[in-house]
Amino acid sequence: MRILLSNDDGYFAPGLKALHDALRELGEVTVVAPDRNRSGASNSLTLDTPIRYHLSVEGFFAVTGTPTDCVHLATHRLMPKPPDIVLAGINNGANLGDDVIYSGTVAAAMEGRHLGYPALAMSLVGPKCEHYETAAKVALKLVKQLKSRSLAHNRILNVNVPDLPYDQLAGIKVTRLGHRHRADTIIPAHDPKGRDVYWIGPPAEGDDAGEGTDFHAIENGCVSVTPLHVDLTAYSSMDKLNDWIGAMSLP
Amino acid sequence: MRILLSNDDGYFAPGLKALHDALRELGEVTVVAPDRNRSGASNSLTLDTPIRYHLSVEGFFAVTGTPTDCVHLATHRLMPKPPDIVLAGINNGANLGDDVIYSGTVAAAMEGRHLGYPALAMSLVGPKCEHYETAAKVALKLVKQLKSRSLAHNRILNVNVPDLPYDQLAGIKVTRLGHRHRADTIIPAHDPKGRDVYWIGPPAEGDDAGEGTDFHAIENGCVSVTPLHVDLTAYSSMDKLNDWIGAMSLP
Amino acid sequence: MRILLSNDDGYFAPGLKALHDALRELGEVTVVAPDRNRSGASNSLTLDTPIRYHLSVEGFFAVTGTPTDCVHLATHRLMPKPPDIVLAGINNGANLGDDVIYSGTVAAAMEGRHLGYPALAMSLVGPKCEHYETAAKVALKLVKQLKSRSLAHNRILNVNVPDLPYDQLAGIKVTRLGHRHRADTIIPAHDPKGRDVYWIGPPAEGDDAGEGTDFHAIENGCVSVTPLHVDLTAYSSMDKLNDWIGAMSLP
Amino acid sequence: MRILLSNDDGYFAPGLKALHDALRELGEVTVVAPDRNRSGASNSLTLDTPIRYHLSVEGFFAVTGTPTDCVHLATHRLMPKPPDIVLAGINNGANLGDDVIYSGTVAAAMEGRHLGYPALAMSLVGPKCEHYETAAKVALKLVKQLKSRSLAHNRILNVNVPDLPYDQLAGIKVTRLGHRHRADTIIPAHDPKGRDVYWIGPPAEGDDAGEGTDFHAIENGCVSVTPLHVDLTAYSSMDKLNDWIGAMSLP
Repeated sequence: MRILLSNDDGYFAPGLKALHDALRELGEVTVVAPDRNRSGASNSLTLDTPIRYHLSVEGFFAVTGTPTDCVHLATHRLMPKPPDIVLAGINNGANLGDDVIYSGTVAAAMEGRHLGYPALAMSLVGPKCEHYETAAKVALKLVKQLKSRSLAHNRILNVNVPDLPYDQLAGIKVTRLGHRHRADTIIPAHDPKGRDVYWIGPPAEGDDAGEGTDFHAIENGCVSVTPLHVDLTAYSSMDKLNDWIGAMSLP
Repeated sequence: MRILLSNDDGYFAPGLKALHDALRELGEVTVVAPDRNRSGASNSLTLDTPIRYHLSVEGFFAVTGTPTDCVHLATHRLMPKPPDIVLAGINNGANLGDDVIYSGTVAAAMEGRHLGYPALAMSLVGPKCEHYETAAKVALKLVKQLKSRSLAHNRILNVNVPDLPYDQLAGIKVTRLGHRHRADTIIPAHDPKGRDVYWIGPPAEGDDAGEGTDFHAIENGCVSVTPLHVDLTAYSSMDKLNDWIGAMSLP
Repeated sequence: MRILLSNDDGYFAPGLKALHDALRELGEVTVVAPDRNRSGASNSLTLDTPIRYHLSVEGFFAVTGTPTDCVHLATHRLMPKPPDIVLAGINNGANLGDDVIYSGTVAAAMEGRHLGYPALAMSLVGPKCEHYETAAKVALKLVKQLKSRSLAHNRILNVNVPDLPYDQLAGIKVTRLGHRHRADTIIPAHDPKGRDVYWIGPPAEGDDAGEGTDFHAIENGCVSVTPLHVDLTAYSSMDKLNDWIGAMSLP
Repeated sequence: MRILLSNDDGYFAPGLKALHDALRELGEVTVVAPDRNRSGASNSLTLDTPIRYHLSVEGFFAVTGTPTDCVHLATHRLMPKPPDIVLAGINNGANLGDDVIYSGTVAAAMEGRHLGYPALAMSLVGPKCEHYETAAKVALKLVKQLKSRSLAHNRILNVNVPDLPYDQLAGIKVTRLGHRHRADTIIPAHDPKGRDVYWIGPPAEGDDAGEGTDFHAIENGCVSVTPLHVDLTAYSSMDKLNDWIGAMSLP
């Protein structure tokens, strides 16, 4: 089995190393990850400049680009044969609810969606992120299952794991994405010359976080597995929209 | 009416200016846009450093951040009252099919999705992008319609306009997103020292581009309007996934 | 007379505009400046990626590179004939003493040093920088003088102007560079997730700032003009160094 | 002896590792280097955003800043006591003649200039850079000499080593900086959309490269050691400048 591994925390991140070490027993693992922290990179592509890479001491490809760039470069250039599966992570922190829109980890998995197997985004949820080995073990189990089970291709599994020792996990749940409260996300500060600067603040707590959501699973000590698609068409709005677009004359 | 305008081509882009000038008759237009070209920025957030802005000679806010950062900064800091609607664009080039995943223009519109009105992403489709005034006129018509028609909130309208004089438009169509062929997206090159660098290549032609898609509408000289949502949960995969997740014992 | 103008504060900076407007009476002024604030850029070159430019509404070339890149691009590509003189600024803040090592404004002037005329770096000194027109007037006078007087080529004039109305200037002095106190230049802060970040702090006060230095001139309300060279060889150390290098056997 | 080591090629560069390994016998070596390639960084400072660091697997501090930032952060924050000496390199390629103005390696050494010992910038000269161990051995010898010999403080030694096996070195010479020909340094290219981009080209050959220069030493298989200072005042131009500044009336 050929496995492509990426992340958005950078090629030196402990979560990446933990995932790499756990998956090695399944076959050949190629790691292609950003050369710096790219948290919040979403599906961004580097279009204004070319990208480069160097090999790290661990044999990882460190790329001067985004997680999505990494998967492009890996599948079109660095890997002699296409991977059977793409994994991203283990992310240092949650990717729950609306987070998936902004996450570079989820984006790396998304970019693998054209491949035959589903792609997995792995995240560890907790303020300190100490138990990467728990998430690595969960990833290994899921990949093993995926070899014998099929799932529609074009699907990504977004997996969040509570930051607990493995034997303290309360179970595993298939969930939908919840939603977060709207946060006042701008935090003003000053540079040393007294000029205004603004930090983008951390996400708010879960709002729509009831039974069935990824927030709820995590809250209860369970691994949450959310299947994601990437077709953003809002089919349910098409009829209504047709009504009023029909009323327009153009040109 | 208070309108927030952003883009991903930068605050100096002609498409932004054209949209600004067209919308001014509807009320107060605030422009908050990246200080450089951020094409391909997707929904990325600037999390590792704080952002800043300066005012341009036209009175636009030029932000050292992504399109998504711009909408955050505008709605939480720069605008005294929240906007009634968010528009992004007019993008210099298509945002069709899979493009919407990578587009900073669509992302800026997405970020306005919590507001009462739908948000619009406007793009001009053609190799040269000469008729921004056509797309600006279409945007004006759509915003006027939106004032009297309702649409589910949490919806973005992704609007692509053929690069034609306005009176040569063949009509307007409600469409779904098509798909592009998979491109060999890595283009190798060399820097002046002979070292390898890699450009991310341009997107491929439309693949799933038949009747009903955004590609098809454009191909036929029509404006395409695609309603988008941002809930990535693949509900249709949940049962199947439950089957095989249920077969796993964890821990 | 063909004048090339650049800076390190960005093409939108008020000091650049003021200098442009004042010099226009002398001939053709081409402005090629960074597309963002590049204060502290020193003589840095962009070597890992290519650079681009766009034309601003004022007809300035806005370059995705450093001040030094700008002068390269201008003289080798953008200007049909080489400039007679290069001016940089008017910088928003002092470039006194050790500052010249770090300044992108001084670097832009340095890059013009191979040309026949000396190059000028103009800076306005004060906490608020309100009187750009004073520095612009001084620049105009100096350039007019330079047309009839010769000075060794390979020389840059580093000009600092007190932030005062022009008729309150106390005079003009030829000075040497002073030195600043060593500052504790690292200012710790936290990002919104509580992680450590470090700002490079502002420069300290003048230390070697007595009679004859640029600090002293400014302190007394005078324009300071310091001739700079770019040969860093410490000739006075060569004999001593020869002594002990001679004592080494190599290989 | 406490040694601070930095470079501009990044913390993962083989030249840095080679220097680190060679110097370890002399005392405690702290490595604080950029987290990416910063060739051409000159003395640039990161002023618009704060910087961060992480620890690499080898125990090196990897900083999201320039070489100069690294030395600031090291001496003001990361090292419990100030270093006795600062070394930078071993640079992947020459820093001869005018190169020193643009080099981040030389800049890192410059930043250590306030310390009691001189600082060293080490560079390996050759198209392929294979013999880092030669330059490391030279560095070790020089540092040992510096312990018993004094040199004016405020001096940097700029050391270039031919890319040869150690026992093929032809000797060691104290040199002055030569000069390079003016190169046509702008190399036009195109991005995948056909838009113009421009690479800053490589430096030209040595022009003023005769006997006594660093170019000449290298050409003849010798290590070149050039003492550098950082006072850019052109004292020899002050009289002439006084003449014509005196002729100006200001205000």
